[in-house]
Amino acid sequence: MVQCEALGFTLRAVVTPQCLLVLDFRGLGLERWLVLELAHQLASHPNPLPFEFRALEAILQHRVSALQARLNEVGPVILDTLESLVDPKLLSADRTKLHVLLQNSKSLSELETDIRVFKDSMLKILDEDEIIEELCLTKWTDPRVLEESCLGIDHAEEMELLLENYYMQAEELGNDTRELKGLIDDSESVIFINLDSHRNVMMRLNLQLTMGTFSLSLFGLMGVAFGMNLMSSFEEDPRVFWLVTGFMFLGSGLIWRRLLSFLGRHLEPTSPPPMPPVWKRNLKTQDAKAGLR
Amino acid sequence: MVQCEALGFTLRAVVTPQCLLVLDFRGLGLERWLVLELAHQLASHPNPLPFEFRALEAILQHRVSALQARLNEVGPVILDTLESLVDPKLLSADRTKLHVLLQNSKSLSELETDIRVFKDSMLKILDEDEIIEELCLTKWTDPRVLEESCLGIDHAEEMELLLENYYMQAEELGNDTRELKGLIDDSESVIFINLDSHRNVMMRLNLQLTMGTFSLSLFGLMGVAFGMNLMSSFEEDPRVFWLVTGFMFLGSGLIWRRLLSFLGRHLEPTSPPPMPPVWKRNLKTQDAKAGLR
Amino acid sequence: MVQCEALGFTLRAVVTPQCLLVLDFRGLGLERWLVLELAHQLASHPNPLPFEFRALEAILQHRVSALQARLNEVGPVILDTLESLVDPKLLSADRTKLHVLLQNSKSLSELETDIRVFKDSMLKILDEDEIIEELCLTKWTDPRVLEESCLGIDHAEEMELLLENYYMQAEELGNDTRELKGLIDDSESVIFINLDSHRNVMMRLNLQLTMGTFSLSLFGLMGVAFGMNLMSSFEEDPRVFWLVTGFMFLGSGLIWRRLLSFLGRHLEPTSPPPMPPVWKRNLKTQDAKAGLR
Amino acid sequence: MVQCEALGFTLRAVVTPQCLLVLDFRGLGLERWLVLELAHQLASHPNPLPFEFRALEAILQHRVSALQARLNEVGPVILDTLESLVDPKLLSADRTKLHVLLQNSKSLSELETDIRVFKDSMLKILDEDEIIEELCLTKWTDPRVLEESCLGIDHAEEMELLLENYYMQAEELGNDTRELKGLIDDSESVIFINLDSHRNVMMRLNLQLTMGTFSLSLFGLMGVAFGMNLMSSFEEDPRVFWLVTGFMFLGSGLIWRRLLSFLGRHLEPTSPPPMPPVWKRNLKTQDAKAGLR
Amino acid sequence: MVQCEALGFTLRAVVTPQCLLVLDFRGLGLERWLVLELAHQLASHPNPLPFEFRALEAILQHRVSALQARLNEVGPVILDTLESLVDPKLLSADRTKLHVLLQNSKSLSELETDIRVFKDSMLKILDEDEIIEELCLTKWTDPRVLEESCLGIDHAEEMELLLENYYMQAEELGNDTRELKGLIDDSESVIFINLDSHRNVMMRLNLQLTMGTFSLSLFGLMGVAFGMNLMSSFEEDPRVFWLVTGFMFLGSGLIWRRLLSFLGRHLEPTSPPPMPPVWKRNLKTQDAKAGLR
Repeated sequence: MVQCEALGFTLRAVVTPQCLLVLDFRGLGLERWLVLELAHQLASHPNPLPFEFRALEAILQHRVSALQARLNEVGPVILDTLESLVDPKLLSADRTKLHVLLQNSKSLSELETDIRVFKDSMLKILDEDEIIEELCLTKWTDPRVLEESCLGIDHAEEMELLLENYYMQAEELGNDTRELKGLIDDSESVIFINLDSHRNVMMRLNLQLTMGTFSLSLFGLMGVAFGMNLMSSFEEDPRVFWLVTGFMFLGSGLIWRRLLSFLGRHLEPTSPPPMPPVWKRNLKTQDAKAGLR
Repeated sequence: MVQCEALGFTLRAVVTPQCLLVLDFRGLGLERWLVLELAHQLASHPNPLPFEFRALEAILQHRVSALQARLNEVGPVILDTLESLVDPKLLSADRTKLHVLLQNSKSLSELETDIRVFKDSMLKILDEDEIIEELCLTKWTDPRVLEESCLGIDHAEEMELLLENYYMQAEELGNDTRELKGLIDDSESVIFINLDSHRNVMMRLNLQLTMGTFSLSLFGLMGVAFGMNLMSSFEEDPRVFWLVTGFMFLGSGLIWRRLLSFLGRHLEPTSPPPMPPVWKRNLKTQDAKAGLR
Repeated sequence: MVQCEALGFTLRAVVTPQCLLVLDFRGLGLERWLVLELAHQLASHPNPLPFEFRALEAILQHRVSALQARLNEVGPVILDTLESLVDPKLLSADRTKLHVLLQNSKSLSELETDIRVFKDSMLKILDEDEIIEELCLTKWTDPRVLEESCLGIDHAEEMELLLENYYMQAEELGNDTRELKGLIDDSESVIFINLDSHRNVMMRLNLQLTMGTFSLSLFGLMGVAFGMNLMSSFEEDPRVFWLVTGFMFLGSGLIWRRLLSFLGRHLEPTSPPPMPPVWKRNLKTQDAKAGLR
Repeated sequence: MVQCEALGFTLRAVVTPQCLLVLDFRGLGLERWLVLELAHQLASHPNPLPFEFRALEAILQHRVSALQARLNEVGPVILDTLESLVDPKLLSADRTKLHVLLQNSKSLSELETDIRVFKDSMLKILDEDEIIEELCLTKWTDPRVLEESCLGIDHAEEMELLLENYYMQAEELGNDTRELKGLIDDSESVIFINLDSHRNVMMRLNLQLTMGTFSLSLFGLMGVAFGMNLMSSFEEDPRVFWLVTGFMFLGSGLIWRRLLSFLGRHLEPTSPPPMPPVWKRNLKTQDAKAGLR
Repeated sequence: MVQCEALGFTLRAVVTPQCLLVLDFRGLGLERWLVLELAHQLASHPNPLPFEFRALEAILQHRVSALQARLNEVGPVILDTLESLVDPKLLSADRTKLHVLLQNSKSLSELETDIRVFKDSMLKILDEDEIIEELCLTKWTDPRVLEESCLGIDHAEEMELLLENYYMQAEELGNDTRELKGLIDDSESVIFINLDSHRNVMMRLNLQLTMGTFSLSLFGLMGVAFGMNLMSSFEEDPRVFWLVTGFMFLGSGLIWRRLLSFLGRHLEPTSPPPMPPVWKRNLKTQDAKAGLR
């Protein structure tokens, strides 16, 4: 009689060499699996392995595939959402997508916790040989198995391999989860850089237009001056109109161009410090180092 | 006689097989619990377990439920606050909510520390079998129990299960706390992206209006020119008024439209590099890999 | 003869059953403590404990209280600075306060390192029982103590409790330091959200005013048109002045209102996707799960 | 017979003293390597080492060089992309480069996971001496080797050195990967600071122009006033035109200069608090401390 | 004969009781050190310690001081750069300084890796007593030393102290590196807060000027209206000019003041929620708690 509570943590089961007694599986939607699949699986297997092996494997298989199913559900949604959020053409992030991302990110955290809990309980069993020995129930009850054991067919070792296999699968899932979390972080950085870049581009356009408006205001002031009901002594000369009008438009244009080129120079210093591309040099040194080691 | 100082760290208690001597519980609001509940709990239990088991369980139960209560207090407040802060309709974050978040985030950190301290002290006891043996006081004093021990009913193992059970509960609490912290971090990223998105949208609107103002200034300059008290030789022609006025308004409109479409093209390059949706492809490869493993 | 170098790392001391020989305490401002307090403390104690216990306790006490003093110095300054920096009324962060924060944050890092180094050296001693045995000098020299030892009064165990006690205190300090660091991080996020919120609010105000200026420019263009020295055939009609003036002001106002309501709709979509408040639901599921476990 | 599954995790191989039986290498592009190179390598070696050593070395060599090749592929691309992204002359981040960075960052995460998995499986073997003993197959089968073993030539130790060597190489790769990730993070911070700096510079220019536009509007209002068809009694004085025009332009210029200097003073407080350069002082103290230790 | 490869990882050396055979030191600029200093150091020492101690100490000393030298090179540059980057008077970050920071940050990462590798290899030796025993070569060859060993002078212990000493030095270096990295992170946060603060201040100034421009446009529209060549029936009244002009200027000023005070109220709510200074209270509770523990 062995309590598998540590393994499943949602399923308390008593495994005996002849039967699997499942306790305490309330409310977790496991009924269908237990009744329909588990019994079938345990009965139909023409498996030469002892019964407790098959029972344990069925439970572990169910746990791992449940975790895998949750990752398969969350993963593609996150990837799709990120794919559309990091789209550099977007000026602003889609808010519903952000909401979806946040929800799935929360699910991912919960999944990560569950995988870690599963891995920890597996590890605790793997670390203590006694527990593994205990799990091999048939050994202690079936004299035939005891004989086999003397012939070098070690049940404990096989049990360890079985557990290790599922531990590796859980580790794999954990790695995928961690990569997905890292991808979310990286994508968020890229989203921020994208939004900032857009803002900078718009700000430059805004600045260029403000420059234009300023130039127009400056030379428009001249027109306003001549528009005053005051005597300027040029009133009668017909050429002055064209002269002043031309000066206004040309002057605005020239000042604007001047300001734009100033902006260009200001933002992009013409004499940048040489700044040696240090990284590549370092990389080579690194390669050299690596070669030497 | 055993000092439970390591367990409670706010409660120094001496557990003997017959009585529980609580020392040093000043000022922590524990008096009520000690007097009203603990004594009752210990006395009334028709529990077949030795006294020291029940005393220890009562103390551990009290500790864990105190931690759980703190989490239950902090958690929903944080979730509510985040829920309203990540609301994408908000242009600016509500400052009082931020304050509440900061306070509860601090409480959460303190709770996390306390859970970790509790877990560490539990782990220290679980790691050393001697301490567990020592905790089973009755064994050493009650000859009847000593007999039972020979019959295979091991008190130390039961004690270990008891401690492990509370350790698992504390671990659960720790996991919930960590998830909550992760959720705060994720939500903060989403809040930042929301605020940045709003800003970009407003900046684009601002830019579009600046473009309009620029167009109006440009063609208004023409009107200002004709408004000068200078002779333009068009003064007498009644059609010129309508021509110039129409040109001003139409020109402004056309230039504005031109600028708007330029902005559209500038922000959204028409020929984006194909950018293969690498992630999905990778995901498939991953699946393939997973299948092969 | 025992070298306490590992413990103090700023104080090399030789502890013998009769005397404490302190070496190598140059320049660290420890002279006063050594001469005035330590000697006094060691001599005056009517302590039944062996001399080496009291010497070791004095050194450890001094180390821990020095660390505590540093935390007490840094902590309140950081809390005060953060309290004034996260003030949501501030439009921009106070620069001198940021400087103070940076300095104290650096001190906190150094303190954290020192606490960790202290804890590590304590842990190294606690992990090896031999070192603890060696630290109990009197046992090996004093025949009376050796007798007591046979009577069950174990010096090594008491020494371990002494060391563990100071280790716990150092751990406490380390936890407080970590919480303080976390609080700085959280506060920085809140500061950023505050600054961003202020900026968004200002940007909306700016946008609203830009809308107003645009409306005025648009209808002002009409006034400019009628101000031209060109014949519009309306010159003689007295009602036209009031008509056009009224149209200009009313039109500006209407267009502005239109733009403002457009902005309102643009920033706050009237038909937000329902967005189920997933967290609360999840929380309940979590509670349910917790209940089942 | 030894299953190398733990080592390769993409290659299940059975190593015997005489032959290497490779199983389960579907679909991973390993066929060419297996057929062309491995066989050649194993056969041609005039290596005095036992066969299983050479087989194991070939497999490990292949694994490590595959990981190294992936790092060599990803590393330079990331460095190049970062080098061009942190270029301070850029006003906005190149979007295709960000996309490339994100993709390669994802590849780097996957590579990091694979390296860690490889290191973990190596470590598991290195931690258990039994497995290493088992790997030295020839010892158990070849009587000549058994003799050598008595002469002090220990195969297990050589096997350990072999495995350790490849473990070190994997560790090296892991370190390079971690450094690369750190470099990406640091570069992202620099990119953000660059974008923010650009924005601040543009905002200051924008502010300066807004100040100019404001000054022109303020004094332009005077010109507008005199442009009204109302009697100001100055209409006949020819000097007033020049007076008012000059006042308008000079006044605008003066007010603008005033505003600009105000901006300068506002952004750069003239009496900055002394702010002692604490770090350098601290550094010296640190050096002094280091000297004393 | 001992291979020090693990220690140096850039230097493969064979240490025998009589000579130090250095292998494989290609290309790392170590020739000068090896030829000029090491030989001299080993020969001239009138050191009573066995030869292998002196050789090992020389190699370790060289390694640690090389790491220290790299830290001494990188550290002050980083501190200087940060000191000038966090200067709150700067509107935008100096780009060349950012470049320098990025380069040195990269060097710091590499240094951190090298220190960790060095510490790991030291730790591996310290963890296995056998290796330390093996390192004490003289013991096994020199009968005189073997005698001393029986007299209680233990070479292995001295060797352990020697290694531990250098391990502590490396740990010190690692701590300094970590603190430096933390300082870079903290400084980056402060730089961001500084840049954001500057931006908010400029944006408020910009907003105030936009308010002014808006007021001027609004009342300028009145002037434009009276400037139209339309009959307003006020043309002949000399007081109307002054009335309208005064209204325009006064009205602009009043509206502007109104808007400014609105901005002030908008950004700084007059009735802030009380917001209890929770931290200080909490701190006191913490102190109280600390006192109770």
